[in-house]
Amino acid sequence: MGSDSDLPVVKKACDTLTELGIPFELHVYSAHRTPEEARAFAAGAVQNGFGAIIAAAGMAAHLAGALAANTVLPVVGIPVKNDTLDGLDALLSTVQMPSGIPVATVGINGAANAALLCAEILAVEDEGLREKLLEKRRAAAEAVLEKDRAIMSRL
Amino acid sequence: MGSDSDLPVVKKACDTLTELGIPFELHVYSAHRTPEEARAFAAGAVQNGFGAIIAAAGMAAHLAGALAANTVLPVVGIPVKNDTLDGLDALLSTVQMPSGIPVATVGINGAANAALLCAEILAVEDEGLREKLLEKRRAAAEAVLEKDRAIMSRL
Amino acid sequence: MGSDSDLPVVKKACDTLTELGIPFELHVYSAHRTPEEARAFAAGAVQNGFGAIIAAAGMAAHLAGALAANTVLPVVGIPVKNDTLDGLDALLSTVQMPSGIPVATVGINGAANAALLCAEILAVEDEGLREKLLEKRRAAAEAVLEKDRAIMSRL
Amino acid sequence: MGSDSDLPVVKKACDTLTELGIPFELHVYSAHRTPEEARAFAAGAVQNGFGAIIAAAGMAAHLAGALAANTVLPVVGIPVKNDTLDGLDALLSTVQMPSGIPVATVGINGAANAALLCAEILAVEDEGLREKLLEKRRAAAEAVLEKDRAIMSRL
Amino acid sequence: MGSDSDLPVVKKACDTLTELGIPFELHVYSAHRTPEEARAFAAGAVQNGFGAIIAAAGMAAHLAGALAANTVLPVVGIPVKNDTLDGLDALLSTVQMPSGIPVATVGINGAANAALLCAEILAVEDEGLREKLLEKRRAAAEAVLEKDRAIMSRL
Amino acid sequence: MGSDSDLPVVKKACDTLTELGIPFELHVYSAHRTPEEARAFAAGAVQNGFGAIIAAAGMAAHLAGALAANTVLPVVGIPVKNDTLDGLDALLSTVQMPSGIPVATVGINGAANAALLCAEILAVEDEGLREKLLEKRRAAAEAVLEKDRAIMSRL
Amino acid sequence: MGSDSDLPVVKKACDTLTELGIPFELHVYSAHRTPEEARAFAAGAVQNGFGAIIAAAGMAAHLAGALAANTVLPVVGIPVKNDTLDGLDALLSTVQMPSGIPVATVGINGAANAALLCAEILAVEDEGLREKLLEKRRAAAEAVLEKDRAIMSRL
Amino acid sequence: MGSDSDLPVVKKACDTLTELGIPFELHVYSAHRTPEEARAFAAGAVQNGFGAIIAAAGMAAHLAGALAANTVLPVVGIPVKNDTLDGLDALLSTVQMPSGIPVATVGINGAANAALLCAEILAVEDEGLREKLLEKRRAAAEAVLEKDRAIMSRL
Repeated sequence: MGSDSDLPVVKKACDTLTELGIPFELHVYSAHRTPEEARAFAAGAVQNGFGAIIAAAGMAAHLAGALAANTVLPVVGIPVKNDTLDGLDALLSTVQMPSGIPVATVGINGAANAALLCAEILAVEDEGLREKLLEKRRAAAEAVLEKDRAIMSRL
Repeated sequence: MGSDSDLPVVKKACDTLTELGIPFELHVYSAHRTPEEARAFAAGAVQNGFGAIIAAAGMAAHLAGALAANTVLPVVGIPVKNDTLDGLDALLSTVQMPSGIPVATVGINGAANAALLCAEILAVEDEGLREKLLEKRRAAAEAVLEKDRAIMSRL
Repeated sequence: MGSDSDLPVVKKACDTLTELGIPFELHVYSAHRTPEEARAFAAGAVQNGFGAIIAAAGMAAHLAGALAANTVLPVVGIPVKNDTLDGLDALLSTVQMPSGIPVATVGINGAANAALLCAEILAVEDEGLREKLLEKRRAAAEAVLEKDRAIMSRL
Repeated sequence: MGSDSDLPVVKKACDTLTELGIPFELHVYSAHRTPEEARAFAAGAVQNGFGAIIAAAGMAAHLAGALAANTVLPVVGIPVKNDTLDGLDALLSTVQMPSGIPVATVGINGAANAALLCAEILAVEDEGLREKLLEKRRAAAEAVLEKDRAIMSRL
Repeated sequence: MGSDSDLPVVKKACDTLTELGIPFELHVYSAHRTPEEARAFAAGAVQNGFGAIIAAAGMAAHLAGALAANTVLPVVGIPVKNDTLDGLDALLSTVQMPSGIPVATVGINGAANAALLCAEILAVEDEGLREKLLEKRRAAAEAVLEKDRAIMSRL
Repeated sequence: MGSDSDLPVVKKACDTLTELGIPFELHVYSAHRTPEEARAFAAGAVQNGFGAIIAAAGMAAHLAGALAANTVLPVVGIPVKNDTLDGLDALLSTVQMPSGIPVATVGINGAANAALLCAEILAVEDEGLREKLLEKRRAAAEAVLEKDRAIMSRL
Repeated sequence: MGSDSDLPVVKKACDTLTELGIPFELHVYSAHRTPEEARAFAAGAVQNGFGAIIAAAGMAAHLAGALAANTVLPVVGIPVKNDTLDGLDALLSTVQMPSGIPVATVGINGAANAALLCAEILAVEDEGLREKLLEKRRAAAEAVLEKDRAIMSRL
Repeated sequence: MGSDSDLPVVKKACDTLTELGIPFELHVYSAHRTPEEARAFAAGAVQNGFGAIIAAAGMAAHLAGALAANTVLPVVGIPVKNDTLDGLDALLSTVQMPSGIPVATVGINGAANAALLCAEILAVEDEGLREKLLEKRRAAAEAVLEKDRAIMSRL
């Protein structure tokens, strides 16, 4: 994440990864205040055994793009909503990448989905993880159906 | 893609996949006109050996989300610019997914990046493909540097 | 509705339908988490005696479109405001439907109007209901005029 | 329509109604230049045998709302794109109606969908029309599938 | 005003008119719920001795335009901010009028300015009122300069 | 106008004023390049017999506000559409004035309406001009009705 | 600043200048309420020994542009967020300046960055100040790295 | 500039610098394709005698921020308009910088102003350059006044 003030958003990604049994490291690297550390992390990520990177940042959110520029691992970008513009600045700064350097962008503050997307990426070659994801989908569907059965009584 | 009118955009993804030697199928499935075919394609994608899905659609662009709802393969969404609103409708319809069903969204009309993102996903476990991606990055960097050397003379 | 968190918005539609004596069912179906249940509900709606469907969803609000894709009953879409972007994402995702599959979209969080629109649709062939709607209009007008008479004294 | 300059957009609605065998009248009434004629048309529409009204207008598009204020027939609004703001002004002016007076809004320049929505409204009590709509859906789906079969050869 | 819920905004206009000694009437007329009363008020305004009309409304704010359609008195429009979209819907619905029917639009919730604009309009032929406006400007300027003198001590 | 490149837009205001027999002066004054001339013009406008001022400018359109800051004559602002952002920048820069200094803003590129608004302002105390405006309204209404009578044959 | 209500935002600029040992004056000048004072301040700024000007204003934020029109000193503009539109109006009114009169715009409410930008401008010819800025950068980087080391324990 | 496709925009900056007699280098460095070259250029800019840096980029325009992260020289950002979103993405990506790393942002495609801003920065300590800027202002003002004198005859 670009700042530790993003932790309340990013925590949902950590929780999801933990739930799925996917090991991860959590870092605060700023594309602007610590560009060299951000670059070094991305450049060494394959060698250090990472399978994907999640980057969360707000405003002129360059972190995802700055990491993506230094690795060919999939980089998932979480645009973080800040005090102004409702996250639109972060969304456009994250998703509108120039040709050649993709960022897999999820919705504004969409940290849980960022973790799930990483899990889906890792699950391409990991049937056990894929089954966990399918199980999670089934549980989510069942939760919706349970709410559906109860909703009339909540009027 | 959601309509064959998206082909001029999507073609750049096909070209990039071809260049990287990644086999693919090209389909026209509409989330609204052929929802069952779209669903069936996504639901069978793992079994049919796909490693990722790219979905391109414009306006209230539901295709990527509709496919993602039926598979745990990574789904990459390309928001396609249409006659109005400059693609903002497609971008928001693609990226603002509810928790649980991620779509890896690239920039508006960002078809080449969609293909590269798929390649990065497949390359997590494919060193040969990763090397091709790195080679492509080096070539792109070299092209920029060549332009840099020539730019003063173009004034 | 796409999630039971939409109930505070949707309740106003239920209240209006109840007031007009129009029977209804309330369901939680998610276009992404329970796509099959959503599809089946829409596909069977004519046969099950429904005259119209209201769909409320936020963010990349696909529910109305997903239902409309599976029925030729009129589908009324309520874009629900969420934590970011003030409902603009839901509005565009609901209203910007491709040619062939219309969604009758009302304003953001416009649940009462969604119910009234359904009532107007059913009233095309139901003079009694039409008269109830006219009566409601007269009452609303009278309420405005009453406020008009009292407003100077509120300064 | 609010101006005859909207005819190129509105014509698609006429074509669709004609194709479905639904009789209609076409009028130019301006909410601002001929408010009395617009009002009178809406107020007399039930008595004159209309089942629904389509209103197309651009910019501060008040026509749909002005008609809806004078009838309890369903009023379908088409926001028309003009020289500036890409139709966003017309969309918001049409869809963001106050509680009590709904407008069934379709997408920007979505004239074909406006006609289909009227047809769906009339088909609630007209099985023959409903069957025509289903047939049109099947034909549209078949057209997509045909394009799907041909698309690989167009690369 | 279009609804008595707009009173907190509109009150600032009343206060300004009172301060300037300009007599006024305050009304609640809805373009959609009481269109005939709104029309009649505008159509009779010249005869009833009004020199200008202020219209305040939110969302698809048609009130100013509906009044302007029925009078050649200057109509000043106040776009009122509502629960969603931060008043952008009201601004565009008020200002983007078609050629032939102008609305003099002030800023979102800009009720004091609406009153001042009316005063400026009436002051074109009223030197006493013009002098009051100039005096008010001088007082406002003096207030700014006083704040300027004090500001360093507030750090 | 702020630049002579605005003339194609502004010309419609001149035509309308000429048609209504209202004398006017046309000037190019830039709020930023010739601030003193703009200020002096506004400050002397009452004394020079002007009854209202129209200001047309694009981008960060300060001209209307800069003139309004130096006169208590009504200032009508025309936001002019430029190469980017579709005139939204000019609209917000013109209409969102701080309390105390109103600008009567018309729609983007709405030059004819700006002239009509000035005419309405001058007509408050000029019955002959008011009658001309009413006549123009009647002619516009008749033109709409004529188009209405012809429209069916244009399908 | 354009109003003393901007002080909570502007204070961060004062704090940063003070921390860097850069002397400054703080003024409240309104582009619209005290245009002459604003003009005179800018016109005399070089002679009075200023090296740069910071202007903070909200809504139709003309202050930065009005100052820039009267000096060739660098003018830094801070768009201030107000009650509506999330500061977008102030941003566009500040940044979209016509050719010839630049304003160095920072982010919405970006007062600390405005001060830093002034410091960078003054540091072009002041090695001591440049060293202070570099030191501040190093401290900021160190703070990020410290947070990075602690972040895992905050999960 | 981030890509040589930005040259038509950037050329106006070069022309202005040349006209003012300010020497410059023109480079193509991409924040994403050649991040190391961009970093190295910024990091060495002070030592290489540069007084300011202009960065032009479109879409998720990170170039200005990436350079600013590596120097305390003033960095001027030009948001470049691309195929979609009218440059809004580039504007927000350039201007909404996090606290600590300012970018002096000019308007969309505002290359001439970027050059003028650099000149103003350099002129803080260069009276000759300041005089050139004042002369340019006087010439621009005179050009406006000349247009003003001619405009009536162009109607």
